[in-house]
Amino acid sequence: MSHLLLDKHRDTLRKALAAAQSRRYWNPYIDAGSVDAAGADQAREALQSYRGAQFYLDQPGVIQRCGEERSPYGLALLVSYPQCSPDALISAGKTAGVPWARAEVDTRVGVCLEILDRLHKGGAELAQSVMHTTGQPLSLARSHGVAQALARGLEAVAVAWREMTSVSAGALWERTIGAQGSARMHKRFIVTPRGIALLLTCSTAPTWMAFPALFASLATGNPVIVKPHPSVILPLALTVAVVRQTLKEFGFDPNLVSLLVDEADAPVAREIATRPEITLIDCSGRSEFCVWLKHHARQARLFAFSSAINCVVVDSTTDYKGMLRFLVASIAWYSGQLPTSPQNIFVPASGVETPEGRVSAAQFGRDLGFALGKLLDDPVRASEVLGAVQANATLDYMASVREGGESIRDSSSIEHPQWPGARVHTPLVMACKLSDEGMFSQRAPGAVCFVIETPTTSVAIATAERIMHTHGGLELQLYSTNSHVLQLAEEAAMRAGVRLTSNLSGTMAQVMTLNLPSAFSDFQGGGGNPASTATLVDGQFVAQRFSFIEVRSAP
Amino acid sequence: MSHLLLDKHRDTLRKALAAAQSRRYWNPYIDAGSVDAAGADQAREALQSYRGAQFYLDQPGVIQRCGEERSPYGLALLVSYPQCSPDALISAGKTAGVPWARAEVDTRVGVCLEILDRLHKGGAELAQSVMHTTGQPLSLARSHGVAQALARGLEAVAVAWREMTSVSAGALWERTIGAQGSARMHKRFIVTPRGIALLLTCSTAPTWMAFPALFASLATGNPVIVKPHPSVILPLALTVAVVRQTLKEFGFDPNLVSLLVDEADAPVAREIATRPEITLIDCSGRSEFCVWLKHHARQARLFAFSSAINCVVVDSTTDYKGMLRFLVASIAWYSGQLPTSPQNIFVPASGVETPEGRVSAAQFGRDLGFALGKLLDDPVRASEVLGAVQANATLDYMASVREGGESIRDSSSIEHPQWPGARVHTPLVMACKLSDEGMFSQRAPGAVCFVIETPTTSVAIATAERIMHTHGGLELQLYSTNSHVLQLAEEAAMRAGVRLTSNLSGTMAQVMTLNLPSAFSDFQGGGGNPASTATLVDGQFVAQRFSFIEVRSAP
Repeated sequence: MSHLLLDKHRDTLRKALAAAQSRRYWNPYIDAGSVDAAGADQAREALQSYRGAQFYLDQPGVIQRCGEERSPYGLALLVSYPQCSPDALISAGKTAGVPWARAEVDTRVGVCLEILDRLHKGGAELAQSVMHTTGQPLSLARSHGVAQALARGLEAVAVAWREMTSVSAGALWERTIGAQGSARMHKRFIVTPRGIALLLTCSTAPTWMAFPALFASLATGNPVIVKPHPSVILPLALTVAVVRQTLKEFGFDPNLVSLLVDEADAPVAREIATRPEITLIDCSGRSEFCVWLKHHARQARLFAFSSAINCVVVDSTTDYKGMLRFLVASIAWYSGQLPTSPQNIFVPASGVETPEGRVSAAQFGRDLGFALGKLLDDPVRASEVLGAVQANATLDYMASVREGGESIRDSSSIEHPQWPGARVHTPLVMACKLSDEGMFSQRAPGAVCFVIETPTTSVAIATAERIMHTHGGLELQLYSTNSHVLQLAEEAAMRAGVRLTSNLSGTMAQVMTLNLPSAFSDFQGGGGNPASTATLVDGQFVAQRFSFIEVRSAP
Repeated sequence: MSHLLLDKHRDTLRKALAAAQSRRYWNPYIDAGSVDAAGADQAREALQSYRGAQFYLDQPGVIQRCGEERSPYGLALLVSYPQCSPDALISAGKTAGVPWARAEVDTRVGVCLEILDRLHKGGAELAQSVMHTTGQPLSLARSHGVAQALARGLEAVAVAWREMTSVSAGALWERTIGAQGSARMHKRFIVTPRGIALLLTCSTAPTWMAFPALFASLATGNPVIVKPHPSVILPLALTVAVVRQTLKEFGFDPNLVSLLVDEADAPVAREIATRPEITLIDCSGRSEFCVWLKHHARQARLFAFSSAINCVVVDSTTDYKGMLRFLVASIAWYSGQLPTSPQNIFVPASGVETPEGRVSAAQFGRDLGFALGKLLDDPVRASEVLGAVQANATLDYMASVREGGESIRDSSSIEHPQWPGARVHTPLVMACKLSDEGMFSQRAPGAVCFVIETPTTSVAIATAERIMHTHGGLELQLYSTNSHVLQLAEEAAMRAGVRLTSNLSGTMAQVMTLNLPSAFSDFQGGGGNPASTATLVDGQFVAQRFSFIEVRSAP
């Protein structure tokens, strides 16, 4: 029965393989979460129904129930989840893993595609859960938290299928040995999973970071224990519930994928991460924790994504206003809490070359502040763009930055038209010199951006390279009309291990499309600097999760 | 000019890609080293000409000359090599790496294929150098040290090409955004190497272990520093010389690949391995050193192959004599110094089922000893099979084992008909009980095999699994006519992360063919136990050596 599943989804797999190769735009889940008015009401009601409720998961080893989620939009969610012992989940995962590992590649891939399909059908509800835990604006929760997250999951399944089928399942090996006739062997090559995968998810992009890892581990045969951030559990709980239900329906043990929750003041991540049964760890979260894992959980292969200090170098442009519009939208969107949000904007002291003449560095700062004000002057639009600040600690950070230097545009709080208790704040824009590196070489958790005057564009590129290479970065943005500068930046990006994006401009709608890493096309990470040890989604991201075990015998 | 190289070798690449997928037998270098009488004489003379000579390598940062190689066949080689400072090689490699990284994938792959072709042409000389440093019999040096080593290198190039071309080099990305028209970007995906690769090679299979790593790193754009074991330098020096010459001819900086030598009493491996510039380390060698690297050289990705305790379980057979012949040939071949040589033979206390009836465990031990004696009774054949013991320490180890238990067949030294000073010793076969685990759970460096009586076949399989999973193993061999036992062993092999080979029998010629891991077909390692952290050659072995860096811009 589960074998037929791949037939059902074969066209999706075929298109996914083609898209992962061509890197052109494709997303079969693009409408996920975008429903008609009745559907939207239903999704909102579904979210309300979870408030204070007991989330049902038939997992073993329940110790107690816990859960203290509060929406950054002001809603007390307080869903309670069964808290299970790591021992019980590891042991149940191990048992569930045996038949899953022995299932055919096509069977596992078929089940994964069916799970994605079902998550897609429940996309509107999933988007609500992402919005009310992360603080993402609903539009972002739909596109990034659901549609792109699902597509990244599908990309992982497709690349896993490609890697697992890159060698024949069996062969008759035959070699002539002179007059002595020939030597022959029957050989089989069995995709063998590594063990149990632990998936530690973050508070701002929980599904988007989780789905590639979840599906890469699952498709290659590994049981997965999902341990969400204690303040952002619901999207993962909904996901795990769908996965478990689908597994059960197709004859597999649901304990293959389980949810491990904990409380902020009694964390369990370090304990389980160092267990010998855990052979794969995917983690998105704070740099310090990722470094801790690298040093302490050495029994496992680690795929980690942590804080990125993304830099922008502004040298020259043919469209000054379009550039400013694009920059402020990138800064403001989800209050700068996306993994790819820009933080440091470097401007040469000689100013920015534009068709209307040279704009001084100081003037550029003022223009940027003004453009940001214009984008955010309407509170309805502002709250649609900004979303809510996920963590209270971010506000403390903003206050400390504001005190430590000179601001171009201060942050202010905004009343959300729909959610009166929402934590909505406009970004703080600071003016810096190169000597303020102590300030701008730390990753801002959000809502802060630094405009840094540098002697020249070359120094700007070199500084951006050094900071991203040393402290971690995902993307370097460049505005320049000079092909020599573009070349310089390309080489810096290669050395720093970051994506280079140049000369984007346009409206908010375009920012929302262009700035979001697109599954099947944009690579995220690269392992070349501390922000990542892996790439979403390349061959090594999936190939490290299994090995080919060979079984050979006399014919 | 270097671009045309891929055209020259395109057919080889095409066939290599097909073979890596089909896993059928293929080796374009199979005649390597097997030359006519005149060629053989020439190769021997070439080796003689290196004795006491100054090996020429135009590398930077020469400190002094060193080299103290002595052939296990009794010849004092004493070639002297330039010893260069790690600083100079790192710095020169970095410089050389820039244009190499920016060369097209097809250019790099073409140069790699040309290098393999040239190494193939010099195969007879290379085989002599392998023989007289490792102690391998000449036939093994030709097949394993040259033909299979080159084919494994080619396999690495092919898999690297497959991974590097798994995504398009560029794309026009276009997405419709409702009434607002569409958003477009030009994207390029640049294969970006990780940094400098360090290749640490071992004393018994130097080329076979080195070539996959060397070519995987080189094809993906990384400079490589080759640091051979101080007693086995010449095969790698010859290789590096060919690589450098070819690079130079095709317009690349030869310092892309350099040789780093040291003396046994002043090792440099630990110092260079922890340098931040070293981002990839391939190591084959002692377990303790591989563990040290894992804990100390954390800045690099580690691909390590270390000691393997390979186990055999003898349960039942349809061809008792054929099985014994195969077993003793496997034990004796190169004195058990191959990475896949069997060490522990488990026999159930109830004996071995054969068509002629049940053979008791004690009788099996005597029959094995007798068959070994028969294989080695002619000193000419014996020295062709045994080769020479690479290290003196192995003889000390044998003496300590002999004193610690009961031998079935003692080791004796044999006069080599051609090389009077050769270190030729027949294998020591010991009789053990399960309680002797302290003895047989250590990897014998060679020439020792343990016959271990176990209560049942199931206990034998479980013990073999546990020992290989805990201490490292590459292959489990099984003799059984019982499909249930075969299934048990297959599951044990998957859990232990080792290859399972069952029911092989036959002559020495067949052993030499069947027992040697065949490039493009057999996987070596798997990363599932301490004997390896990688697999020769799968997708992850090459894909971890580069990342795709994306460059995108407004159209």
